Amino acid sequence: MAAAGKDGGADAAAPTRVTIRQVAIHAGVSEAAVSYALNGRPGVSEQTRARVLAAARDLGWAPNIAARSLGTARANAVGLVLVRPPRQMVIDSWFTQMLSGVEAELNRREIALVLHLVDKIEDTVDVYRKWWAGRHVDGVILTDLRRSDPRLAALLEIGLPAAVIGGSPDPSGFSTVDADVAGTAGAIVGYLRALGHRTIARVAGTEELFHTWQRDAAYVEAVERADLRYRVLYTNYSAVDGMRAMRELMTGGEPPTAVVFDNDVMAAASLKVVHEMGLSVPEDVSIVAWDDSDLCQITMPSITAVEQTPARQSELAAQALLATLDGGEVRHVTLPPGTLNPRRSTRPLRSGRR
Amino acid sequence: MAAAGKDGGADAAAPTRVTIRQVAIHAGVSEAAVSYALNGRPGVSEQTRARVLAAARDLGWAPNIAARSLGTARANAVGLVLVRPPRQMVIDSWFTQMLSGVEAELNRREIALVLHLVDKIEDTVDVYRKWWAGRHVDGVILTDLRRSDPRLAALLEIGLPAAVIGGSPDPSGFSTVDADVAGTAGAIVGYLRALGHRTIARVAGTEELFHTWQRDAAYVEAVERADLRYRVLYTNYSAVDGMRAMRELMTGGEPPTAVVFDNDVMAAASLKVVHEMGLSVPEDVSIVAWDDSDLCQITMPSITAVEQTPARQSELAAQALLATLDGGEVRHVTLPPGTLNPRRSTRPLRSGRR
Repeated sequence: MAAAGKDGGADAAAPTRVTIRQVAIHAGVSEAAVSYALNGRPGVSEQTRARVLAAARDLGWAPNIAARSLGTARANAVGLVLVRPPRQMVIDSWFTQMLSGVEAELNRREIALVLHLVDKIEDTVDVYRKWWAGRHVDGVILTDLRRSDPRLAALLEIGLPAAVIGGSPDPSGFSTVDADVAGTAGAIVGYLRALGHRTIARVAGTEELFHTWQRDAAYVEAVERADLRYRVLYTNYSAVDGMRAMRELMTGGEPPTAVVFDNDVMAAASLKVVHEMGLSVPEDVSIVAWDDSDLCQITMPSITAVEQTPARQSELAAQALLATLDGGEVRHVTLPPGTLNPRRSTRPLRSGRR
Repeated sequence: MAAAGKDGGADAAAPTRVTIRQVAIHAGVSEAAVSYALNGRPGVSEQTRARVLAAARDLGWAPNIAARSLGTARANAVGLVLVRPPRQMVIDSWFTQMLSGVEAELNRREIALVLHLVDKIEDTVDVYRKWWAGRHVDGVILTDLRRSDPRLAALLEIGLPAAVIGGSPDPSGFSTVDADVAGTAGAIVGYLRALGHRTIARVAGTEELFHTWQRDAAYVEAVERADLRYRVLYTNYSAVDGMRAMRELMTGGEPPTAVVFDNDVMAAASLKVVHEMGLSVPEDVSIVAWDDSDLCQITMPSITAVEQTPARQSELAAQALLATLDGGEVRHVTLPPGTLNPRRSTRPLRSGRR
């Protein structure tokens, strides 16, 4: 390895030991910025690039020769690795809308989408490495970040450009396009409070997901502001798990008068539980779904739901990725809160009830 | 263009006018076989290849130089072009299961899936041409063939290997993996007849699709065999269109006592129409869905449905395509009929009714 240091006092005996993290600290920028700058990729300003290169020189950082020898020809393809859908995805609308949005942007630019499904999130990183080594893709789009997500650090290390649909637990690295989670939770809680509800429960998705954590925080803030009682149960998003949670809520000591669900499928399935217990929606309990769909309109009663824009969100994430590839800066977009569509599953609380 | 004729009496003055169709007729094989043989692609036996090459020599066929100069390196990628989903796909489970099945096979072989969505089916052919010209994919998978499908002839002309999920109106060319449509329709009609139903209606999907036509033929045969009255209405598969069709059926002169739907979403939505008319399922009308899903289990009543295996079907189609690429013959697979899962939406016809 050639010692890159020219004017720096780096430890010339072991230049390859210098990490991207050390360069980032030295330059006072994010690891992502270092990765982009050192890999000759767009995504950082010229000033940042210069600062990073100076820091790398100072520390005697040596490039990964293998990674650098790949040339710069564009693949004109973007990758998307999804962790193999558990069964609940089957009637979950989010996936197809997301795909449609990503494709809308890629089609405009004549860029192909390479799709890969893996069984475990850890396998994703291997796919990224292979794709990047063979220059099969120019960048990747991530969804469903975990609260602690192995993909982010790996992407930084690999130097593969990326953009995130949703928020990111690590704000330093990649472009993100997120919905206004706090605004949406606030609208739902505010509506239920206005209807007189004081005890709200939430049937949430998978606890390990970052966006479940975002909603957790947003709901807690909203119910505290509104001075409501609140509890949350976690599920795997499936109809069956949603029904289990609803049964648990309605048979506990102090059943809620309103239940909010993290997807439409669980909200629809919960109607069956209420029915099997001899109760009615909305007479005995109000129901709200986060994510609207046809499903919320064909149930009896129809379900009050918050309309999200996953296609638009995904389109903007693809756009952000392509902008990065063209030399643009990392951007963080927050879309407006979802639109609450009131239907028959919510009603004012009768006086005399909790 | 070099005259390829050595021992034949071809019209040497205009060798480039010889078409693949002429070679096919001369060799007594399909146009697909000619395309494969002349493009040096697998998918035909050595005997067939020899016969095609002899016929091509006889007729003075000249290869498309541009097409031949692309080299033979594998892209290790398979393409899938989908016509942009209309809104109903949003809660249609078929798509995600299909994708999951295709990926299951491709993952095993470390082959990438390149996905593209287009607005019109005609745009598909342009994508195929571009992919094949740049060798971005080694072959493509087709779904949802039309009764008259522009893609089949185009693929033959381009010489791009393909396999079909479902049946094909043109049996000559590509591998197909289909469900036993006649067996499934027979099982549904036989069950309803055994329950005493004599007037059956069907809410079908899009009339232009080949598999709608297959089901049309299968149902007609089954109801004629069972001596039942039968009518069919076509829809775009959406909940709203399914509801419109159900309303039309139930308000006509002789309403059916049982209605079969071409998907789960329309069957679920029809429950709402029955309810809004002051009627009940299954007391006043029985309901069956072709395609089972979680949705059929969370409705009230739960819906009798035929369980298909789209993931398996798609996996086998991907397998058939890869086999063709490796030199295997075109194959036509028919999976067993779907499994009827009786639930609460069907019951024996009360005596005294039609």
